[in-house]
Amino acid sequence: MLQALYDEIQIGDTIQSRGRTVTETDVVSFCYLTGNWFEFHSNVEVAAKTEYGQRLVQGGLVFSLIPGLVVWDARYVIAFYGVDRLRLIRPVFIGDTVSARIRVAEKKVRDEASGKVTFQIEVVNQRDEVVQACSMIILGRRKCLDEQAELGTG
Amino acid sequence: MLQALYDEIQIGDTIQSRGRTVTETDVVSFCYLTGNWFEFHSNVEVAAKTEYGQRLVQGGLVFSLIPGLVVWDARYVIAFYGVDRLRLIRPVFIGDTVSARIRVAEKKVRDEASGKVTFQIEVVNQRDEVVQACSMIILGRRKCLDEQAELGTG
Amino acid sequence: MLQALYDEIQIGDTIQSRGRTVTETDVVSFCYLTGNWFEFHSNVEVAAKTEYGQRLVQGGLVFSLIPGLVVWDARYVIAFYGVDRLRLIRPVFIGDTVSARIRVAEKKVRDEASGKVTFQIEVVNQRDEVVQACSMIILGRRKCLDEQAELGTG
Amino acid sequence: MLQALYDEIQIGDTIQSRGRTVTETDVVSFCYLTGNWFEFHSNVEVAAKTEYGQRLVQGGLVFSLIPGLVVWDARYVIAFYGVDRLRLIRPVFIGDTVSARIRVAEKKVRDEASGKVTFQIEVVNQRDEVVQACSMIILGRRKCLDEQAELGTG
Amino acid sequence: MLQALYDEIQIGDTIQSRGRTVTETDVVSFCYLTGNWFEFHSNVEVAAKTEYGQRLVQGGLVFSLIPGLVVWDARYVIAFYGVDRLRLIRPVFIGDTVSARIRVAEKKVRDEASGKVTFQIEVVNQRDEVVQACSMIILGRRKCLDEQAELGTG
Amino acid sequence: MLQALYDEIQIGDTIQSRGRTVTETDVVSFCYLTGNWFEFHSNVEVAAKTEYGQRLVQGGLVFSLIPGLVVWDARYVIAFYGVDRLRLIRPVFIGDTVSARIRVAEKKVRDEASGKVTFQIEVVNQRDEVVQACSMIILGRRKCLDEQAELGTG
Repeated sequence: MLQALYDEIQIGDTIQSRGRTVTETDVVSFCYLTGNWFEFHSNVEVAAKTEYGQRLVQGGLVFSLIPGLVVWDARYVIAFYGVDRLRLIRPVFIGDTVSARIRVAEKKVRDEASGKVTFQIEVVNQRDEVVQACSMIILGRRKCLDEQAELGTG
Repeated sequence: MLQALYDEIQIGDTIQSRGRTVTETDVVSFCYLTGNWFEFHSNVEVAAKTEYGQRLVQGGLVFSLIPGLVVWDARYVIAFYGVDRLRLIRPVFIGDTVSARIRVAEKKVRDEASGKVTFQIEVVNQRDEVVQACSMIILGRRKCLDEQAELGTG
Repeated sequence: MLQALYDEIQIGDTIQSRGRTVTETDVVSFCYLTGNWFEFHSNVEVAAKTEYGQRLVQGGLVFSLIPGLVVWDARYVIAFYGVDRLRLIRPVFIGDTVSARIRVAEKKVRDEASGKVTFQIEVVNQRDEVVQACSMIILGRRKCLDEQAELGTG
Repeated sequence: MLQALYDEIQIGDTIQSRGRTVTETDVVSFCYLTGNWFEFHSNVEVAAKTEYGQRLVQGGLVFSLIPGLVVWDARYVIAFYGVDRLRLIRPVFIGDTVSARIRVAEKKVRDEASGKVTFQIEVVNQRDEVVQACSMIILGRRKCLDEQAELGTG
Repeated sequence: MLQALYDEIQIGDTIQSRGRTVTETDVVSFCYLTGNWFEFHSNVEVAAKTEYGQRLVQGGLVFSLIPGLVVWDARYVIAFYGVDRLRLIRPVFIGDTVSARIRVAEKKVRDEASGKVTFQIEVVNQRDEVVQACSMIILGRRKCLDEQAELGTG
Repeated sequence: MLQALYDEIQIGDTIQSRGRTVTETDVVSFCYLTGNWFEFHSNVEVAAKTEYGQRLVQGGLVFSLIPGLVVWDARYVIAFYGVDRLRLIRPVFIGDTVSARIRVAEKKVRDEASGKVTFQIEVVNQRDEVVQACSMIILGRRKCLDEQAELGTG
């Protein structure tokens, strides 16, 4: 379980997520949701003529799956702050199984109640090859809501 | 229509996308797809107690919608390269209508056939407030496939 | 239950389907599935400026719902043959409840085993106003598969 | 891009759409949306015993995909008016890639501001075989909204 | 068609439902809807190492499909009362085709207008093996609404 | 986090799940997935005339949501064994927020490696009223896979 409580998290902490197979249903559902029908992703005839010979999983889909692969302790998360240097490193194909390797890379106090935590994230496939990398920044609570409530400061 | 042909695109070119209302169906479908059920997005009772008093649209959903809001001339796109400095600036709520303002910010030749184009993107709501910003980098073809075919170089 | 067995159906037979409320989820799901994001259907700001002041349900969605509103005796149906004179008569809005009134309009023997049945269909809303009309042509079996099997002719 | 501005469109104009592979996800999603579970489309055991030996893609699904395969200049479209003579010509199977060939077949002035444009549409598969045909009638604007606004007549 | 009118149903009545192939889309959609991503169902690498060597269809999905496989005469149903002894007997895999065998097992008058009917349900696959069994209890009307209306007692 | 490791779980252990608002999208998606379109759930006109005056959330949907509301330690779960005495106690409406209260009610050794754990589950709404109850039986591992691997007994 991934805590985003600023004060508990330590630089260098790591977590390995569960894995999830990216299915044709996922790829088509992402076309549905986004309205983005690039034929690399949605046309097997066009895809067959590319260097990969098959449809590519959308980079945006792989990126979207990351937060759901781990169990967050949601009480400690204030907000999703942003993302830096998202890079698509290797192609992902239908049937590949992705998981996330997450490392706490940086902490920065913001104020009395909150701090920014930067997670360095690598998405790997079933052959342990990195397919995508990014830095994800979360605004974390410095004290748990419940503790604050107990202390009468909530 | 947004061309990503390296040689035709000019720094400073801009495009305004169509708008799309973010519905409850979109928010729930993004929970479905990602498996990320943070209660800010999925529990009206919890959301009612936050400073916003209602469910927040996921930042990742807003980000995912961007490429589908514009019409790309897909023949010119080689690959989605990456994203820099994605920032969530204002909350988006169910019922808000988002569109994208896209500006060509940078061009960089990679080789004879391709170049990187950096688009500076702002997502705005129906009050023209910027809710999200990022730089999206696309690998564009330097010559159209069809022209290459005609020239016998494809 | 709607039989499409050619020999049993009589011109003038009618059936009233169950009703189904067209939800925002249906409208958004039809945008998803078709990739057609006309802003009349998907942008509340644009829709607010039209004569209707709100999003329109897609005509193609209403049309797609018709066959599922009735219970067909599927053993008798050979194929969906075609549609004539589909007309969109009144707007349908999110929250309207549609049902179908179906009348057997025409029968035409095709060969020993099959015949074409033309159903005249009116889709009505909760105020019993006709919102859409069409003729749907089904290729029906002249003898039931099971009967044929029993007779050793199947 | 397909304009439906009455005055600009010429009889004989043609457009070839992008292609889209019809996936099992599409077929199942159309069962979901419509509530029509004919076993030709949803039961591989039943489908295996038909002349085709496999599930058929719904005719209504193929028809629904047409408008989303082309890029419309939505500013010129007033309404979807109707469809004539929709015919299912060849079976479509899961994995087939369909695209639309659209030809302007007829124009008819309605009033000062609008006219009906009839598009003759053929849906073809990856072997360029026509699988479905119909005439689709669109009510087009005679002058663009923006031009009207500029002229003070909007 | 399955009537739940208490007075008409007889103990021992049976019905065989239509069949439906459980697709990968169904399995993924059930993960989506429920937020339950057990890797037996969603990760082909993990599933490959189990005794079954492949992903299992969720027991809850198979159970959820039962009521939709038969045609109920909805006018006679008051409420879904409950389920007893739901047991998962054999694994169901993607591509299996399930149908329901339903037998009226018990009737119990509740009051003047209603009674409980217990249906003993077996879900079978394409090899006629029972994969799931349960008792489903429905509250049925003792007189049809329309008859009551005719009698002035509705 | 809910462990299903037989040896660690104690009778009387309880867990309170996160909450999830049941949306119209959930209700419609469950109609989609199951093909069950009872008008209590899908027709606002029919629903308006019932004692509740509005659409009911499907009991089967509420039941399906339970396992996804808690975080299971999946390594300890062998199989979903069955359900006893599922009862629908109060109606659930669109917009209600449900969560699960889970109590370990019974343990029964099956063999050296596994045991059955019975969880008594109550689903409650935002007013803490019980809307559904059941006993869910899980087959749990007696020793963790990893421990077994370490011990050379896996």
